[in-house]
Amino acid sequence: MNISHIEHLGIAVENLEDSIAYYENVLGLKCYSIEEVEDQKVKTAFFLVGNTKIELLESTSPEGPIGKYIAKKGQGIHHIAFAVDDATEALKTAESRGVNLIDKVSRKGAEGLDIGFLHPKSTLGVLTELCSK
Amino acid sequence: MNISHIEHLGIAVENLEDSIAYYENVLGLKCYSIEEVEDQKVKTAFFLVGNTKIELLESTSPEGPIGKYIAKKGQGIHHIAFAVDDATEALKTAESRGVNLIDKVSRKGAEGLDIGFLHPKSTLGVLTELCSK
Repeated sequence: MNISHIEHLGIAVENLEDSIAYYENVLGLKCYSIEEVEDQKVKTAFFLVGNTKIELLESTSPEGPIGKYIAKKGQGIHHIAFAVDDATEALKTAESRGVNLIDKVSRKGAEGLDIGFLHPKSTLGVLTELCSK
Repeated sequence: MNISHIEHLGIAVENLEDSIAYYENVLGLKCYSIEEVEDQKVKTAFFLVGNTKIELLESTSPEGPIGKYIAKKGQGIHHIAFAVDDATEALKTAESRGVNLIDKVSRKGAEGLDIGFLHPKSTLGVLTELCSK
């Protein structure tokens, strides 16, 4: 597995509009895209910080993964996504090294990336995504 | 405030040795430094991923901030640190924009950086550090 950089950080927020205002007006970052990912039941807002993105995630349903996460843990950093050459290959490599996978093969995520998640029980509590273009 | 990149991510772990093994043997990253920060009651291990560091944090005392965090929330991503030109100036700017500060002025953190924390109640649940060289 060849990780080049942190592709993005996913941050669970209760209200996307208020959160964009904080990242723009307090931290001085600039939201460059808002996107809805229907199968994940989220609306996302993207900021670029160096070569890492911050992806704010507001749930569009209490039944979605972010809705459930916020109900249990509150707002906060939800996952880390590492950029790899090939997400499906990297998932296989992780599995061969003893990691339980949420996604056995990669699927399409926000911004058209191929993505897959490792299970946080195998990654010291950090929900971890691998993604490639 | 001029944020150039994510300087590091702090990840709270129960056992530094086991965690280093995961980041090295599963993710293929390389620990380049281990450091104890006595006033924070932590032992830290650093990895470079692109131009962002991952800082694993093991508490050296149940009374330290990481010990208390893990007791309450378990292992996971503890904070995000943004690189700024001048941490003390950036703290002042954040305060002038309505953020409650944990550190009114910067202090010395790991790797000799000037650091200061914003209060997570002002930052949508994300414990946020500003740091400069």
